[in-house]
Amino acid sequence: MIVALAGGVGGAKLASGLAALLRPDELVIVVNTGDDFDHLGLRICPDLDTMMYTLAGVANPELGWGLAGETWGFMEALARLGGDTWFRLGDRDLATHVERTRRLRAGAALTDVTAELCASYGVAHPIVPMCEQSVRTIVHTSDGALAFQDYFVRHRCAPTVRDFSYAGAEQATPSAAFARALARDDLHAIVLCPSNPWLSLGPILSVSSVRERIATRGVPVVAVSPIIGGRAVKGPAAKIMDELGIEVSPSGVASFYDGMLDGMLIDDADAAHVPALLRLGVQASVAQTLMANAADRERVAGAVLAFAESLGARSRATSGD
Amino acid sequence: MIVALAGGVGGAKLASGLAALLRPDELVIVVNTGDDFDHLGLRICPDLDTMMYTLAGVANPELGWGLAGETWGFMEALARLGGDTWFRLGDRDLATHVERTRRLRAGAALTDVTAELCASYGVAHPIVPMCEQSVRTIVHTSDGALAFQDYFVRHRCAPTVRDFSYAGAEQATPSAAFARALARDDLHAIVLCPSNPWLSLGPILSVSSVRERIATRGVPVVAVSPIIGGRAVKGPAAKIMDELGIEVSPSGVASFYDGMLDGMLIDDADAAHVPALLRLGVQASVAQTLMANAADRERVAGAVLAFAESLGARSRATSGD
Repeated sequence: MIVALAGGVGGAKLASGLAALLRPDELVIVVNTGDDFDHLGLRICPDLDTMMYTLAGVANPELGWGLAGETWGFMEALARLGGDTWFRLGDRDLATHVERTRRLRAGAALTDVTAELCASYGVAHPIVPMCEQSVRTIVHTSDGALAFQDYFVRHRCAPTVRDFSYAGAEQATPSAAFARALARDDLHAIVLCPSNPWLSLGPILSVSSVRERIATRGVPVVAVSPIIGGRAVKGPAAKIMDELGIEVSPSGVASFYDGMLDGMLIDDADAAHVPALLRLGVQASVAQTLMANAADRERVAGAVLAFAESLGARSRATSGD
Repeated sequence: MIVALAGGVGGAKLASGLAALLRPDELVIVVNTGDDFDHLGLRICPDLDTMMYTLAGVANPELGWGLAGETWGFMEALARLGGDTWFRLGDRDLATHVERTRRLRAGAALTDVTAELCASYGVAHPIVPMCEQSVRTIVHTSDGALAFQDYFVRHRCAPTVRDFSYAGAEQATPSAAFARALARDDLHAIVLCPSNPWLSLGPILSVSSVRERIATRGVPVVAVSPIIGGRAVKGPAAKIMDELGIEVSPSGVASFYDGMLDGMLIDDADAAHVPALLRLGVQASVAQTLMANAADRERVAGAVLAFAESLGARSRATSGD
């Protein structure tokens, strides 16, 4: 049984590959909620939705967010009314936000609402939020501290990043489903999906006790590098690393995880970085990691599972289990 | 200057005729909010919206509510999520509810929010809610007390009506714009649009002090009969009158207004009811009152204005003004 930690698009691709290979009781996908925000009176959970839509096979491949075949009547009418249109919400996508907001206001937990929405979309594998409490990613930039969506959508990641913080993370606790998954007897490995380390996985790891729970489990922790050939597959990861003075490479990413990783799956293009990873105490496995289609996703997921298994076997051999 | 009291479809037709004949400073349209309700976390104001869309020329002529050229992606997706779909909300219409709800939650008054929405839709004539407070029309039926939307949409007006009440009306006060309009020196007449007397105009008249303010102004109060030839043009008015044991006729409608009316514009088909109206102390004027198109609306509006003017002239002659 595998716990996968993920953010949006890149994470959802690997998670869908894992879901294609594993049974629903063999995988728990833990999703970043540090991007969540209230907008137009609605609770928006971008990464949970991207994950749900991707696993349901209804994600919008062109946009990288929202639903395929979406229509935009709501946004057009909202623009006419002078409403806030900087964050685009499709007509069908809007139903997710309205229904989630309604159920949360009625007192339901985000984990339960997410499970219900996923069931409606026919997603069999459990997608769970990292916590029930509000954690908000703050991007400290040359233009000051920006809420995540301000940085990401309004400012299109233009300001120079100096640091990150995750407001509320210390007071937050892992969701019960997350904690249960980390405590399961049959937990074989923890997979860090190729999501942005600072924006997507950082918030999950910042929730109180998460790093400790992972460290004390002693199962292999394996990341898939979101950096390929010195570039991010998608999003601002490479720009952020540059601005933080971190080498834009798999070992740069590994340094962020600060001793937590047992292994990293890196792309063929980055084979030269294996020694740097080993110097950090991180085992490496090399494969084609770009996921352009469903077959790629399954292949990369298979490579991660095989790598994690080999690390687990080695660990068991070393410890004499 | 004219104050028009109105509910949804029928009222909006006459109001749009009045708006075609009068300048924006010569007409204040006061709209029923007794049908308003909270749904999916949104504040829905059906009559305000029907009025706004009708005056903006964007109302859906087939449905009798909502916007023309509407799409339904939101409802389709909401159905998939198991959400409440008994009250249908179009994608574009939804923007009105989301934006209104957002502004109300931010502390704006319904009158101001309505004015802003109307300005966005290019409506020049003031549309004002009857009050800022919550008034809820309750339909007492053979199946028990039903909230208006339960009766009207869910039960499609099937239960037998025994009585009506307007919860909160006694605690409510006319909106400032409504009160100001009733107090204006240049007020010439008050027009009761051909909306349902019990469901649309009853709530307005039940707001505390409204009947008194109207009575003490001494300007002609003129209704347009919503009953033509023993039938309601639209909606359950005739069925309700039957169930309440009231004759389905202009004089049956006049009896509901209980001495408030100076005159009623009735359809050619109901000319035989003139004596009954006169016996109630209500002057009558006869015209073609069915409004199938914009020309009809202007014609009926013109007939109402002319009738009100003649009643005013007679009243001034009698009182020696």
